[in-house]
Amino acid sequence: MVEEITDVVIIGAGPAGLQAAVHAVRKKASVLVLGRLENSSIYSAHVENYLCVDGVTDGAELLRIALAQATRFGAEVWPEDVLHLGQEGELFTVNVESGRQVMARTLILATGTSRKKLKVPGEKELLGRGVSYCVDCDANFYRNAKVAVVGNESAAVDGALTLTKYAAEVHLVCKDMAVGKELGEKLSASSVVVHKGVWAKEILGEKAVSGLLLDSGETLAVDGVFVELGAKGAMELATSIGVLLDTDTFSFIETNKKQETNITGIYAAGDIAGPPWQMAKAVGEGCVAGWEAANHANRIKRMSESA
Amino acid sequence: MVEEITDVVIIGAGPAGLQAAVHAVRKKASVLVLGRLENSSIYSAHVENYLCVDGVTDGAELLRIALAQATRFGAEVWPEDVLHLGQEGELFTVNVESGRQVMARTLILATGTSRKKLKVPGEKELLGRGVSYCVDCDANFYRNAKVAVVGNESAAVDGALTLTKYAAEVHLVCKDMAVGKELGEKLSASSVVVHKGVWAKEILGEKAVSGLLLDSGETLAVDGVFVELGAKGAMELATSIGVLLDTDTFSFIETNKKQETNITGIYAAGDIAGPPWQMAKAVGEGCVAGWEAANHANRIKRMSESA
Repeated sequence: MVEEITDVVIIGAGPAGLQAAVHAVRKKASVLVLGRLENSSIYSAHVENYLCVDGVTDGAELLRIALAQATRFGAEVWPEDVLHLGQEGELFTVNVESGRQVMARTLILATGTSRKKLKVPGEKELLGRGVSYCVDCDANFYRNAKVAVVGNESAAVDGALTLTKYAAEVHLVCKDMAVGKELGEKLSASSVVVHKGVWAKEILGEKAVSGLLLDSGETLAVDGVFVELGAKGAMELATSIGVLLDTDTFSFIETNKKQETNITGIYAAGDIAGPPWQMAKAVGEGCVAGWEAANHANRIKRMSESA
Repeated sequence: MVEEITDVVIIGAGPAGLQAAVHAVRKKASVLVLGRLENSSIYSAHVENYLCVDGVTDGAELLRIALAQATRFGAEVWPEDVLHLGQEGELFTVNVESGRQVMARTLILATGTSRKKLKVPGEKELLGRGVSYCVDCDANFYRNAKVAVVGNESAAVDGALTLTKYAAEVHLVCKDMAVGKELGEKLSASSVVVHKGVWAKEILGEKAVSGLLLDSGETLAVDGVFVELGAKGAMELATSIGVLLDTDTFSFIETNKKQETNITGIYAAGDIAGPPWQMAKAVGEGCVAGWEAANHANRIKRMSESA
């Protein structure tokens, strides 16, 4: 059986990801973009610093134009979140929320870095003392504890499932669940206590988190609250597969001028690759990452054909 | 007397230079762009790979939009070529073709790298054996020789003047001279033999250049032909002030992720900073260079104010 392998899989459908798609596909690579426009930080932004675009300044509109360009040139785009990354020999595996697995010759990480806040009392005050934005980073601190995850999308559901391996009790607080069928089924089969139709109102605690007050009036007695809004962060996906962060701030992925990370075949572009957080910079890095990833994929193919 | 000092002087009015201007000026730096849109390699190009621009594909039109953006935000633009760069203490001096000198806290080199060809018989065949595209690189090989320079603009005139310090006889072949008053006066006062209204038809020679056939039928007996079309290359300007090129190919300016060159305060962006030669990459590097240069200039000002 011959499994289909994609040359360049791009995680993130913002300016960096879509520009990477345009350049990779023009170099005759097969390209798949995974992500939703709405998760790009420019989706709800007003853009006026991006060169040669002096009329349209609505981020959402710009992204729709970019998406049309990328798909017209031949890139495939799935509006799906990525749940897991892995490596099998020289290839990368990408598991998306619908349950599909994609095999990739190269990966481009381009999902931005924004950590969406809940904006409730106690969140800022208890950050790092029970409040976390990264399940994969902090789950280990909650062995045998009681925790709550707040969020409606794949990051929250996947985070809650991960936490069942560590914590004694896992609550998931979601107003309006929006995840794929497969992930929903896994959740149903798990020990996670799902609180549907409610939302977080306040994070309680003096020196550390002691509870989560819901807008229904109910209080969950928990030691930790994970805020997981939006898609699973590429930063977590990246570090889970061994991609290194910058050694000064550990807040973005370290890349060279070719947008290569420390792992051969994995590239990063845009906000996730460091400041300045500007659309023009994201587009420039996306161009280079797409170009280099396509070249690398084409090289691998030539080598395996001549072997 | 207090001389006016510009925070960020950008050499080159293509995508990298203009995006640099937009970002530098938004950071409250004073910004001057030197260069002509027509000298950008995208001016006569068809652009369709640049993200979010999916209608206008005419390079000249894109540059006019970009110029309007940069000037609206407050950048000053002089459509002038740069003839010389220098350093005075911590400041840079920039001499332009009109004869003016500008003092700059930081410089961004963004003029591209294209070497325009004459496209006449003998040019390709005798490259490196009497045919050259860089006066500053090769003048020294023509001590006491006879040489011709072909070109209509500042690069050609300035190149011919430079060559009078080396060669015994310097001819300038120009169809239609287009240089500033000051440069024109220098030319008149020099020993350069100017052939106006004619153009190169063929470069003659077997193993090395022996002459230049003009379209008037006349043949100039020369040992070297310098093709200097367009503006003076930033590459030559850059190396004249000590900016280092990449150590592999010596064909572009070496920069780090902040677009810094080896000289503090000098940045490079776009094609001159290396491949891929793409508009998106130029814009991304321009953004970073403008951002970093403005920060650097602002730091210098704060330090000198508190000193």
